[in-house]
Amino acid sequence: MDIITMDHGSGGKKTYDLINNIFYKYFNNDILLQQGDSSILKNINERLAVTTDSFIIKPIFFPGGDIGKLSICGTVNDLAVVGAKPKYITVGFIIEEGLNIKTLKTIVKSMAKEAGEIGVKIIAGDTKVVERGSGDKIFINTTGIGIIEENHRLLGCNNIIKGDKVIINGTVGDHGMCIFNEREALGFDVDIRSDCSSLNELMKDILDVSDNIKVMRDPTRGGLGTTLNEITQTSNKSIVLNERDIPIKDEVNSMGEMLGFDPLYMANEGKVIVIVSDDDAKKVLEEMRKNPLGKDSKIIGEVIDDNRSRVYLKTKIAGTRILNMLEGELVPRIC
Amino acid sequence: MDIITMDHGSGGKKTYDLINNIFYKYFNNDILLQQGDSSILKNINERLAVTTDSFIIKPIFFPGGDIGKLSICGTVNDLAVVGAKPKYITVGFIIEEGLNIKTLKTIVKSMAKEAGEIGVKIIAGDTKVVERGSGDKIFINTTGIGIIEENHRLLGCNNIIKGDKVIINGTVGDHGMCIFNEREALGFDVDIRSDCSSLNELMKDILDVSDNIKVMRDPTRGGLGTTLNEITQTSNKSIVLNERDIPIKDEVNSMGEMLGFDPLYMANEGKVIVIVSDDDAKKVLEEMRKNPLGKDSKIIGEVIDDNRSRVYLKTKIAGTRILNMLEGELVPRIC
Repeated sequence: MDIITMDHGSGGKKTYDLINNIFYKYFNNDILLQQGDSSILKNINERLAVTTDSFIIKPIFFPGGDIGKLSICGTVNDLAVVGAKPKYITVGFIIEEGLNIKTLKTIVKSMAKEAGEIGVKIIAGDTKVVERGSGDKIFINTTGIGIIEENHRLLGCNNIIKGDKVIINGTVGDHGMCIFNEREALGFDVDIRSDCSSLNELMKDILDVSDNIKVMRDPTRGGLGTTLNEITQTSNKSIVLNERDIPIKDEVNSMGEMLGFDPLYMANEGKVIVIVSDDDAKKVLEEMRKNPLGKDSKIIGEVIDDNRSRVYLKTKIAGTRILNMLEGELVPRIC
Repeated sequence: MDIITMDHGSGGKKTYDLINNIFYKYFNNDILLQQGDSSILKNINERLAVTTDSFIIKPIFFPGGDIGKLSICGTVNDLAVVGAKPKYITVGFIIEEGLNIKTLKTIVKSMAKEAGEIGVKIIAGDTKVVERGSGDKIFINTTGIGIIEENHRLLGCNNIIKGDKVIINGTVGDHGMCIFNEREALGFDVDIRSDCSSLNELMKDILDVSDNIKVMRDPTRGGLGTTLNEITQTSNKSIVLNERDIPIKDEVNSMGEMLGFDPLYMANEGKVIVIVSDDDAKKVLEEMRKNPLGKDSKIIGEVIDDNRSRVYLKTKIAGTRILNMLEGELVPRIC
């Protein structure tokens, strides 16, 4: 059985073979195949968006995806939320000695497939190997470059005003709960799949349909609760959520109750929070629902102006509580 | 004592605090402080160079540098060798639970200092934390974006012709030998320091002085021997090196002989191989020697055309041997 050895990180012949037989083969494109220390992008004449993310998820394969797919989706979504069209991605692998090369190939193919569907090119890469016990199978860093087309306004929290609506494109907490269930082998016989997906098309469509999108954010680590707190802190506005409107799968709710985990703080990898003017909210909601990745979209709350930068939750039993930023760690290594 | 805990990777309050109190503080610049999921670069109208590298060096502090400085220099050099002016860097940290926060601060300050001296901005970042035993103190990914100015030709191995000269800017093998000596605590009482440094100014100066620079490459992992093999394989030319002209420190030579390591295959982190036309070689050599980082520059060989894509070494005892690409691993985790 072929496994990754320290030699594969030597920079010598085995590194060269790995690059040629796996990375160039599956990520195959003209820019990557320049094979230089840097890749050259010609004729760039735009506003660019740049983002970086490392993925250390455990397990590396899970219902709904794997670390490879996730590493593309995560970076694509970070570009798309600022209104950028994802174009280029660089990839850095840190591999633990002993990883099956077949496993690496599966991950690389998964990355290539996701990138291909979106139309992003993987333009540069790097591979390092660490000894057994100094890593955990595979870590992936992806850095993304996107283009912000001229007709797109720059989004930003400072555009948010009282009355704006908060929309989410579907159920929250699926990814975090899926990973926890898989990793801890809890034996809950539930069908919870990660929502891991690239939302660039969905986000592009709503930017095309409305000039009044204020902010888009993907609620990954820290979940909906934490991401909304980041928005309220930057915008100096508050947000009121209606608990009964927040879509949560029954299985996720039940598991959350049994484990004491609040799905509002569980990570998502295929969700986007959209804040849009009151006037355009319905139009945007309809547009989102046309996309399979947005069919369960809901308006879940609205912006108020109480100078407190808080997130309030109107509970099902008609009380109100404050949702703070996540303190401590709910589920580690979920992305 | 404040140490990194899993909470720091939660995406919640402790992550937020780390970002504000360390990363924003030391990497402070207008682009990073946009604080978005992606950072926006306005008014890009150029050819860009993009490169990515992960750093897993052990130990993380060594004579001549640390993992932070190295992560900037390495990426800056990869941009500079293609003739690009380094402009922007993204940083992804993968930290092992238990790392002293003071250590992280020292590394971040070292990165900020090196980046500041070069004039590159750290525009985006990401922090992940893994459990004890799933990482090794700290791994850093840096992705660099540089600008290739209009008056610079694109360099490339296909420009190389018979008679071109091969220049190196100083002694080889220092970095690899230094790291090995430090890590293995061999107790050699020698003053071997890593050559870790940013060579962008040196490279810019020679591109300004000559239109006949064919290729520049930094011989990091795999050393001079492997990097020259990559050049001969891409260019379909061969290279003859004169062993007596290759600068190697006495300490590095002695240690290499005792350990059975060939300095020609040991990693460098402040060296560049320059291939230049015969006519311009002297001029370029003189320019390189003006820079403190190039004061020991030497012409070490020349290009021949024997259709074999080989690297030959004319030894001090007047024999000739073939230098192949490094097989296996000499010293792991040197960058």
